[in-house]
Amino acid sequence: MKRYSDPSESLSERFARVRSGSKAIAAPLSPEDCLVQPALFASPAAWHLGHTTWFFEQFILSDLVGYQRYNPDWDVLFNSYYESLGERVARDRRGLQSRPGLNRILDFRTYVDTALIDALEHHRFSESQLQLLELGLNHEEQHQELMWYDLKYLLGAQALTEPYARNCHIDQFEAGPSGWIECAEGIAEIGFSGEGFTYDNESPRHRQYLPAGQLSTSLVSNQDYLEFIDAGGYRDPLLWHSEGWAWRQRESIEHPLYWRPAGAEGWQQYRLSGVGDWSASEAVSGISWFEAAAFCRWAGWDLPAEGVWESAVRKAPDALNTGQLWEFTGSAYLPYPGYRAASDAAGEYNGKFMVNQMVLKGASRATPPGHSRPSYRNFYAPEMRWMFAGIRPFRYRTEP
Amino acid sequence: MKRYSDPSESLSERFARVRSGSKAIAAPLSPEDCLVQPALFASPAAWHLGHTTWFFEQFILSDLVGYQRYNPDWDVLFNSYYESLGERVARDRRGLQSRPGLNRILDFRTYVDTALIDALEHHRFSESQLQLLELGLNHEEQHQELMWYDLKYLLGAQALTEPYARNCHIDQFEAGPSGWIECAEGIAEIGFSGEGFTYDNESPRHRQYLPAGQLSTSLVSNQDYLEFIDAGGYRDPLLWHSEGWAWRQRESIEHPLYWRPAGAEGWQQYRLSGVGDWSASEAVSGISWFEAAAFCRWAGWDLPAEGVWESAVRKAPDALNTGQLWEFTGSAYLPYPGYRAASDAAGEYNGKFMVNQMVLKGASRATPPGHSRPSYRNFYAPEMRWMFAGIRPFRYRTEP
Amino acid sequence: MKRYSDPSESLSERFARVRSGSKAIAAPLSPEDCLVQPALFASPAAWHLGHTTWFFEQFILSDLVGYQRYNPDWDVLFNSYYESLGERVARDRRGLQSRPGLNRILDFRTYVDTALIDALEHHRFSESQLQLLELGLNHEEQHQELMWYDLKYLLGAQALTEPYARNCHIDQFEAGPSGWIECAEGIAEIGFSGEGFTYDNESPRHRQYLPAGQLSTSLVSNQDYLEFIDAGGYRDPLLWHSEGWAWRQRESIEHPLYWRPAGAEGWQQYRLSGVGDWSASEAVSGISWFEAAAFCRWAGWDLPAEGVWESAVRKAPDALNTGQLWEFTGSAYLPYPGYRAASDAAGEYNGKFMVNQMVLKGASRATPPGHSRPSYRNFYAPEMRWMFAGIRPFRYRTEP
Amino acid sequence: MKRYSDPSESLSERFARVRSGSKAIAAPLSPEDCLVQPALFASPAAWHLGHTTWFFEQFILSDLVGYQRYNPDWDVLFNSYYESLGERVARDRRGLQSRPGLNRILDFRTYVDTALIDALEHHRFSESQLQLLELGLNHEEQHQELMWYDLKYLLGAQALTEPYARNCHIDQFEAGPSGWIECAEGIAEIGFSGEGFTYDNESPRHRQYLPAGQLSTSLVSNQDYLEFIDAGGYRDPLLWHSEGWAWRQRESIEHPLYWRPAGAEGWQQYRLSGVGDWSASEAVSGISWFEAAAFCRWAGWDLPAEGVWESAVRKAPDALNTGQLWEFTGSAYLPYPGYRAASDAAGEYNGKFMVNQMVLKGASRATPPGHSRPSYRNFYAPEMRWMFAGIRPFRYRTEP
Repeated sequence: MKRYSDPSESLSERFARVRSGSKAIAAPLSPEDCLVQPALFASPAAWHLGHTTWFFEQFILSDLVGYQRYNPDWDVLFNSYYESLGERVARDRRGLQSRPGLNRILDFRTYVDTALIDALEHHRFSESQLQLLELGLNHEEQHQELMWYDLKYLLGAQALTEPYARNCHIDQFEAGPSGWIECAEGIAEIGFSGEGFTYDNESPRHRQYLPAGQLSTSLVSNQDYLEFIDAGGYRDPLLWHSEGWAWRQRESIEHPLYWRPAGAEGWQQYRLSGVGDWSASEAVSGISWFEAAAFCRWAGWDLPAEGVWESAVRKAPDALNTGQLWEFTGSAYLPYPGYRAASDAAGEYNGKFMVNQMVLKGASRATPPGHSRPSYRNFYAPEMRWMFAGIRPFRYRTEP
Repeated sequence: MKRYSDPSESLSERFARVRSGSKAIAAPLSPEDCLVQPALFASPAAWHLGHTTWFFEQFILSDLVGYQRYNPDWDVLFNSYYESLGERVARDRRGLQSRPGLNRILDFRTYVDTALIDALEHHRFSESQLQLLELGLNHEEQHQELMWYDLKYLLGAQALTEPYARNCHIDQFEAGPSGWIECAEGIAEIGFSGEGFTYDNESPRHRQYLPAGQLSTSLVSNQDYLEFIDAGGYRDPLLWHSEGWAWRQRESIEHPLYWRPAGAEGWQQYRLSGVGDWSASEAVSGISWFEAAAFCRWAGWDLPAEGVWESAVRKAPDALNTGQLWEFTGSAYLPYPGYRAASDAAGEYNGKFMVNQMVLKGASRATPPGHSRPSYRNFYAPEMRWMFAGIRPFRYRTEP
Repeated sequence: MKRYSDPSESLSERFARVRSGSKAIAAPLSPEDCLVQPALFASPAAWHLGHTTWFFEQFILSDLVGYQRYNPDWDVLFNSYYESLGERVARDRRGLQSRPGLNRILDFRTYVDTALIDALEHHRFSESQLQLLELGLNHEEQHQELMWYDLKYLLGAQALTEPYARNCHIDQFEAGPSGWIECAEGIAEIGFSGEGFTYDNESPRHRQYLPAGQLSTSLVSNQDYLEFIDAGGYRDPLLWHSEGWAWRQRESIEHPLYWRPAGAEGWQQYRLSGVGDWSASEAVSGISWFEAAAFCRWAGWDLPAEGVWESAVRKAPDALNTGQLWEFTGSAYLPYPGYRAASDAAGEYNGKFMVNQMVLKGASRATPPGHSRPSYRNFYAPEMRWMFAGIRPFRYRTEP
Repeated sequence: MKRYSDPSESLSERFARVRSGSKAIAAPLSPEDCLVQPALFASPAAWHLGHTTWFFEQFILSDLVGYQRYNPDWDVLFNSYYESLGERVARDRRGLQSRPGLNRILDFRTYVDTALIDALEHHRFSESQLQLLELGLNHEEQHQELMWYDLKYLLGAQALTEPYARNCHIDQFEAGPSGWIECAEGIAEIGFSGEGFTYDNESPRHRQYLPAGQLSTSLVSNQDYLEFIDAGGYRDPLLWHSEGWAWRQRESIEHPLYWRPAGAEGWQQYRLSGVGDWSASEAVSGISWFEAAAFCRWAGWDLPAEGVWESAVRKAPDALNTGQLWEFTGSAYLPYPGYRAASDAAGEYNGKFMVNQMVLKGASRATPPGHSRPSYRNFYAPEMRWMFAGIRPFRYRTEP
């Protein structure tokens, strides 16, 4: 793990900026909004605020001489999944913990932030402590993005659908200009290299042999996806993976998550700004990998392999208009050759999720600036659909 | 349905008193506490506050000329189970509704209370409207008791167990002085008669032939129940109903709900005042009908039939020290001979629950004063244990 | 428990007759038919044949000096629910036990029958042994009736519906001639008295105070029930118990179990003789207590209390045309006053089921001759519908 | 798809040989054994016998002029998962279909075999028909192997564990001699080439860039695996994938599927020959991919990528002693670059399973001779453990 460094911003300033970002996301929400867990895959905003704080206390502050834990009884609440760090509240019970409540969690944040900024000034951090701090900041940025997913889902699942903020446009995703870029066959170096922060799952850098083909310069639009729906895409099992079809039937999936049928007029879209007009030109989102794969099969396309995507974006950084939505790939989330998870608690960060998930590349409009890079490997199970993800098609070159 | 009347209190005064009682119960709770639904059988305090208010608006105010509904969109949230009144949020999703939130619900209460008190002053209520108002007040009193059950359960289910109020003693139940009173064999008139409010399930008054036996003057104490546990009562299937044993195994039930194992020292008790000493002399509570029946079989006793209980309490009102806990009976909750549910929405109040439930008689320390009477029929499914209920044994007279 | 005695048939003859009856019921079935468990509430025919045999071996033969158990390893398979007799295969796994298979189970029957008939000739049975033998015969007769229910359900649940036997008419139930008989108000003696066998749940005989009303001389017919359906009975929640409505929705119940929609022509009926014409005049069957209660509420009737039924059938044995179908009552299955289950394994026979079940009275066409009597208390949970049960309405007398 | 051809055996002879193989596997089983479905992932032997027959009738015979379907009503029973071919009995209900039963299914086999052999003699098959016949034979061979898995599981899951055949040694797997072979870094051609039959998932042949390392010449033995268990491998979550650990806890997995704790003496093994001694030297089997991955993490090894395995076995066919057990790889089962499933029903054969499954390479002792090849891609979900699969470790070369 390497560290990020920007000469225009001190580490204290950066820490304060990142930390205040999380609070800003939650600011328009009520204490009740911050507590509800509307689905197993989502977490309450208050939990995100507590967990990210716990991360700094657990991995950095608690090792500093003289630091007084805020409240060790809270560990059980704010440990997410670190088996090596003791018992914790089951994930599906996060929304049942009305105590300590939003206000006390915000006090906890202030306490930890003050202590950490103080330590940055008066304490000489070791390289490994600086790396854990870097991990903590990146971790918090990941949770900021999850907060957007979770609060959009939460507010959309209410019986009373009320907007997060009328002027919020973070979930209006541009599809970009149409076109295809050529991807040449051959060996490519894949994985992280260079300076700055990286997750362990982006290494070791290694060689892959990439197939030839073309990658779309635009994402699939709502209009494109509507044609798939209108052609019966949700009713034809031959377009679907067997497991995807079973999922679709069990969950009665018939359209993207935030599309709402609007009678004869067609569709509306629920956005953070409220329920409004359906937009033909926006990039489709609120779909699972299963739906993305069915769409591609219907269209005669494929999803790009993660190496193809990474190589293309390195060669033509601006051609692909990335950063609107995470982009599904056809690659399973597996370790790179020779990967070894760290043996400490931080080793639980990535490696243990490397099964039954698919890789997504790029970034979304909710990804904090500077948080992504070509080697970044995001991952979700193929039935997940609440994250901000879309489809960039790939066409294999067929031999003449 | 008849109406209650107390010359010392006007109807407006009574309405205001009952309504403020609900708010008082919730006063020590945070907005988050008021939202959480810790189990399917419990409801959030905020929901209770909204639902009881909706009841007055739906059944009384909405019929008054000129009344403006507070927000008809909320019907879907605060209708509990009235099939005849349209769609509603599924019971298991009440805790997911962060909107409208506690503060807006309290505003709704104020709006409805103002309108109703105003109507009482300026509007001439018909007899049926007065009866619905009476039903609404009794309904709210029932929910006040449920609020106590639910908030005790909620706070006890938190990872951080914090007291409701250190000086709250509403859940310290006295067992009462030991002894047995004679119950003679013969015909008794059972069911409601006289003046005042009554639920439809207490009628028609009718004759039952009661068996001879003796009814305990005390409730089963924690000490009595501990002997059952120590004798292996939770490990001997022959003491249990088949369905009770399956429930016990499935749920890993091994002691009353709010007893907590405390190592070699034995037990602690969780109460609304916090986790504290186990009391041998308190009446046992936090048990299901299944456990009560197993205890009685172990002890060689029975649960009294509801008619036996009602007859005994009429004959010797003070001998039984009732009012600490609702008391399990051996009677299934079934309609009295000739019972007919009303054909309007109020007809859904009681009759549709008359299957797979057992009758409980008496009242608990959390029952609002004046809310109960000898003919009152409370009822719960045999696996329910969060209500305030205990055991009063009965011994059948064996022929010599 | 008393014993049955018929001077025209020796105990050996009776034993052989009852035992051969079970085999006769299974005779038209294949080994595969005898193994399948189509639902949790049904048992494979081979299991019935093994379990009833185990009962005689376990409770009688194994106490006889010199008796050699056939195969003690089989106890785990053929113990039904006797917790006091050790481990057993979970009920939902009976259909997974391909071993020992039908042929070896039939060998087991022969072995036990031979031993028991030999013992009857050469061994002097004690009174308690004779009572257990009597219980065993009644137990086997109960299982014979269950075999009919189970095999009808099994063959009806096959993808390939094939008849049990074309000339089998055991499931054509007559409704009987219309009319009402008067039931007077007053005290009645209820429960078993006299000579012959009885189950413990029919005692103690005791007094009940019965309400006045009229009992129908006919059962509800398919035509009557069709009117309920056509009037929207399955779509109106106000006719149903809350738990019944939830069950109806969850299970998509819309008509009696063995009615099959037959397009514009209306209905067909599946019977043991195959799928054939729907009969307006047959008594309706294949319904649950929930459906019976909804039908009665729709019709303005009630189900009779068990005491009312028992008293009426004693007074007018021939007026009610019983014996076609078990008849739902409005009574929960609870112990009679002073009832005590026996403390040995036979004590698990009845008492532990006395919760969340409703009493049925009478007998069906599949009940072995001589097996029933007025005090007989059959019982099923309110959602069960595969047994042969129907509706006899009762009308409470309304005071003028 | 190409076709297999062996000059020493006519197509008729081969057809007859393959078809009789299935019957031979089932020969020691009773009709009841052949019906039971002991778990969702297993199918009854009778179903395998019917389904493989249906495959030939559906895909080949039904297109021949003059062929009379045996019984079209059976389609619903014997269609496995072909969505394009109409309704079918849900997979979890296969064991409930007592009709038509084993004997009639064997008649169906005879009918179809006769017709097909007759057609081979008198009818000129098109190339596509010959390819479907080839697919049908390979399909039947796959089901033969599944029959072994399923019947072993079935007999092992019985309350009465009885051997399949005392002299059956098909499930005694040799680990092979220890050692490591070098795998060089570089480009390899992966996928099917040449003559003979192949599944579509083995194509297109394409280039992969393989990492350097060493592949074990032996499979992991029971003794090796026991050391993992004794070292606490099943109790340390850090060795496991998150999803694997949750599965392990939920299913209470603590040892390989067919190991049985034998008190202080250690372990026994259930085999098709009965329950017998545990063998230290046999290759471990009855484990899932989750367990294989946890073992490798504990041992400091990896599972080989599928390309590494294929390349190694091509270079050193005899060094690896394959053919004992299918061998887990670290590769997800995904389409090769440019793969397209066929657009007809046969197109449902492989492609729709390409998600959430891992590739296994090689063959097991139960794989029919000639059925496998280096490019063969078997696949199972990571929690499956009843198939005959084992572990061949790989070591990545770490740069000096």
